[in-house]
Amino acid sequence: MSSKERRYVIRLGCPDRTGIVAEIATFLSEAGGWIVEADYHSDPDTNWFFTRQVVRAESLPYDVHELCRRFVEVTRRLGGRVEWDIVDTGAKPRVVILVTKDGHCLYDLLGRVHSGELEIDVKAVIGNHTDLAPITRAHGIPFHHVPFPIDPDGKAAAFGQLRQLVDAANPDAVVLARFMQVLPTELCAEWAGRALNIHHSFLPSFVGARPYHQAHKRGVKLIGATCHYVTAELDAGPIVEQDVIRVDHNDSVADMVRKGRDIEKVVLARGLRWHLERRVLVHGNKTVIF
Amino acid sequence: MSSKERRYVIRLGCPDRTGIVAEIATFLSEAGGWIVEADYHSDPDTNWFFTRQVVRAESLPYDVHELCRRFVEVTRRLGGRVEWDIVDTGAKPRVVILVTKDGHCLYDLLGRVHSGELEIDVKAVIGNHTDLAPITRAHGIPFHHVPFPIDPDGKAAAFGQLRQLVDAANPDAVVLARFMQVLPTELCAEWAGRALNIHHSFLPSFVGARPYHQAHKRGVKLIGATCHYVTAELDAGPIVEQDVIRVDHNDSVADMVRKGRDIEKVVLARGLRWHLERRVLVHGNKTVIF
Amino acid sequence: MSSKERRYVIRLGCPDRTGIVAEIATFLSEAGGWIVEADYHSDPDTNWFFTRQVVRAESLPYDVHELCRRFVEVTRRLGGRVEWDIVDTGAKPRVVILVTKDGHCLYDLLGRVHSGELEIDVKAVIGNHTDLAPITRAHGIPFHHVPFPIDPDGKAAAFGQLRQLVDAANPDAVVLARFMQVLPTELCAEWAGRALNIHHSFLPSFVGARPYHQAHKRGVKLIGATCHYVTAELDAGPIVEQDVIRVDHNDSVADMVRKGRDIEKVVLARGLRWHLERRVLVHGNKTVIF
Amino acid sequence: MSSKERRYVIRLGCPDRTGIVAEIATFLSEAGGWIVEADYHSDPDTNWFFTRQVVRAESLPYDVHELCRRFVEVTRRLGGRVEWDIVDTGAKPRVVILVTKDGHCLYDLLGRVHSGELEIDVKAVIGNHTDLAPITRAHGIPFHHVPFPIDPDGKAAAFGQLRQLVDAANPDAVVLARFMQVLPTELCAEWAGRALNIHHSFLPSFVGARPYHQAHKRGVKLIGATCHYVTAELDAGPIVEQDVIRVDHNDSVADMVRKGRDIEKVVLARGLRWHLERRVLVHGNKTVIF
Repeated sequence: MSSKERRYVIRLGCPDRTGIVAEIATFLSEAGGWIVEADYHSDPDTNWFFTRQVVRAESLPYDVHELCRRFVEVTRRLGGRVEWDIVDTGAKPRVVILVTKDGHCLYDLLGRVHSGELEIDVKAVIGNHTDLAPITRAHGIPFHHVPFPIDPDGKAAAFGQLRQLVDAANPDAVVLARFMQVLPTELCAEWAGRALNIHHSFLPSFVGARPYHQAHKRGVKLIGATCHYVTAELDAGPIVEQDVIRVDHNDSVADMVRKGRDIEKVVLARGLRWHLERRVLVHGNKTVIF
Repeated sequence: MSSKERRYVIRLGCPDRTGIVAEIATFLSEAGGWIVEADYHSDPDTNWFFTRQVVRAESLPYDVHELCRRFVEVTRRLGGRVEWDIVDTGAKPRVVILVTKDGHCLYDLLGRVHSGELEIDVKAVIGNHTDLAPITRAHGIPFHHVPFPIDPDGKAAAFGQLRQLVDAANPDAVVLARFMQVLPTELCAEWAGRALNIHHSFLPSFVGARPYHQAHKRGVKLIGATCHYVTAELDAGPIVEQDVIRVDHNDSVADMVRKGRDIEKVVLARGLRWHLERRVLVHGNKTVIF
Repeated sequence: MSSKERRYVIRLGCPDRTGIVAEIATFLSEAGGWIVEADYHSDPDTNWFFTRQVVRAESLPYDVHELCRRFVEVTRRLGGRVEWDIVDTGAKPRVVILVTKDGHCLYDLLGRVHSGELEIDVKAVIGNHTDLAPITRAHGIPFHHVPFPIDPDGKAAAFGQLRQLVDAANPDAVVLARFMQVLPTELCAEWAGRALNIHHSFLPSFVGARPYHQAHKRGVKLIGATCHYVTAELDAGPIVEQDVIRVDHNDSVADMVRKGRDIEKVVLARGLRWHLERRVLVHGNKTVIF
Repeated sequence: MSSKERRYVIRLGCPDRTGIVAEIATFLSEAGGWIVEADYHSDPDTNWFFTRQVVRAESLPYDVHELCRRFVEVTRRLGGRVEWDIVDTGAKPRVVILVTKDGHCLYDLLGRVHSGELEIDVKAVIGNHTDLAPITRAHGIPFHHVPFPIDPDGKAAAFGQLRQLVDAANPDAVVLARFMQVLPTELCAEWAGRALNIHHSFLPSFVGARPYHQAHKRGVKLIGATCHYVTAELDAGPIVEQDVIRVDHNDSVADMVRKGRDIEKVVLARGLRWHLERRVLVHGNKTVIF
């Protein structure tokens, strides 16, 4: 993502056995593929093998479609259940950002896009309030206002509208950048592995509402933030990244909110970058980060 | 504690109002007291005022008993409920350490005592297993073996024996250095504010048994340790210190245990130092660390 | 700064002796002053005493001018050399920001101002390039372009223009937010104690140009950033704040630049906040942060 | 090292080109080798390729000598300059530790050996003072006292004696655990890649003597420690690991020394572990840590 050079990112997971690396490496080597990154991991608990390999596009004599076609043969030779995908970095990742009123994460992401650090195409920002419309539009990005009524029917309709807007963008990532609504189960399912949330606590501590208030009440000495994939169970999805910052008895809840923002911003930005660089492989409720 | 110079440590808590600092500072100033450390904190939620002041013993014209006698007058002028104590650093703090089999925290504390970093008098190490007897005795410290049977009566008797051994030492701190028994309510009460535990998780995450297994299962990206005062509710007492260390998908439970040890050791050592330097003021279930 | 409540911040430094705290506390107490923050430090090497006290404005029966007039008497009674000031938090701090092309620090500061986290009045942004004019103006802040030619006369003239623009704003802080010009000695002197720089290394490592290149060449395992007051000697002024982030052999110079930005932003933001909250007391080439 | 299972660790470095991974992976696959860890890195600046692979010993039909013999063929096919080695984890690593008076690092390492965390064979501890003889011998390890006179001839003779004692142990690592003598050039050369030093600063800041004094004088906000390979230029060898801890204006030099110890211990322990697990690949003056 940070490189202008076009690359293919191959990700694969399968039951571990001998010879997988040789199979893939030989296939790539015989095609003349120049591997610039290669990572392997084998999980002894589940006996699952993970790999991510990045190949220079120009080193291969064919395009990504032909690569996929030929790679099917490789996966067949591996036998059994194989999960894999190949992504061409030539296409800018498409992202939709969901917000409420707090703008620090949105502001941070837009700054990274603006500076060229994060080479993504923000297709839309969708908010259940309008506070963040001006900053969004100042960056030339469409802002959609979808109010969320309290009554169940109104809320269901709002989620329907949200779904249409998101799906219209066909995004590689749906970022819940301090979006203060709990996604219904069917949206969690549809966006599985693509919806990233930033939770303002060091999970599994302080699940749910007002985690800084909970942290203040408990008297912890560090507060944190967690970027995780959204699943049907609240704040319980696979964790992508976490970090913490020190607090002390001088810090009020408001101070914790302020200090925590700095952690939320970097944790979300790192998590999103890794997700879009296809560095995150999910297996069960855990992640491998290559 | 780290200084050879004799000092008096004054700690005081009372409802906040104007003039408290002036009252104390004027009292000390008029007696010629040389203040080398002074800390204040006011908690807006509970309207409670905290202070800790350290005075050079030789700067006062009288001893600690006379200081206490005169300080009573100061606290009377403050009116209402006042909690305070004054400690003479001339006396080495007395410590009892409780252990089971894991020796890293004990080893670490003994190393700090041996190097002179931690100027304490370890009166005894008490273990429900004998694994750590040799290292304890190699330091010239008595080791007591108190086996803990599973049956309730036997266990109660063991706690009775433990209590006698601890109380005989009249310790300033009872350190649960990976002691794998839950203290009964009456011991928690008796040793309130003196019993320090090291829990091998970033509380309130992963309360109770096998926290590294819980952390591994949840797939967190940081593991931690917490030093807290022991209270009747398991792992829920006032937190003194916490810290974390990064882990990733390569880390097995055994790796987490190993990495976590380095955090447990420093978190316990810091917490114990602060406790013995009288830097920790407990109010409700929270601590102020000066 | 983060509180709407009006307060007076008293800062004082003088040779240490007994009775200073009593003198100040009694003065404030007799005037009915409600102290909300009080910090003391005594430096044994220089025998210098530092204090910062924050008083609720409404608790005093007179305004800040009368407070200053009366405080003069207190300082006289302390005798000898006394450095002090009193600031009324009712007035929003005035800030000028100097930039070149890299916008991450500016972007970050503007985001904090926009969200209300940093309650300051950014009087102007001045750049020797125009890259950051649009984002500045999008926030309704004047942007001045002062090109810096290479020839000494042209550069001197540019610094003259810069000085005029800055001084016209009479700022409480001049922030060098990745401003790529070395201030001449006379500007360092004029803005002493007000000019804050963010240097993209963990000083004193990697002084001067291209610190990330230097860090990459040396093979360090952590990179850092340093917020310091600007003095005549390059990157050698009193340090206000520092932080680091882990890097490894996978990180190219470009990766270090990217990761380093996240540290630069928070270190500068923290340093500026502390400076404006009058938490930083400079003595010699070192700082006390209350 | 932490596993009882016998493994072969293959490390290889060579100019990067396509097909290296395939070559090695195919070789291992055809022999039935079960790879449990595989890491790759390609340095774009030097075009150097690094890999480390760990194979289950029992998965291969021959022993480590035959593996080496056959691996020579693989390296020949790679062509050009190839650096490689293969280590059998069945043999416990042999370590010699050099000390002076400060015992915290020695104490820490012995604690890790004693608990089984660090499965090494400490052949000898050699000190230029006798302070640490008792703790060494309490662990059943030989302690040799080699006094270092100030006169050049006496010092040269002492280094001669040191060399004999070390070489007699044929160690996998020579650990300078706060050894306060600068190794002569010829010893640096002889022990190149095996001599690990712990320096008590965040290098390249504060090279040489009394780094905590230097840090205190400069007023830094973080202090650190660095584990590096010893080379002829003082404190300038390839860095293996670094870490930092926060300090503030309250910290005297003695406080920094105390806080720094906790960082020195873990940084040295991590560096030594990685070295002995053959995770560190040196190239030029930089390290790759797998």
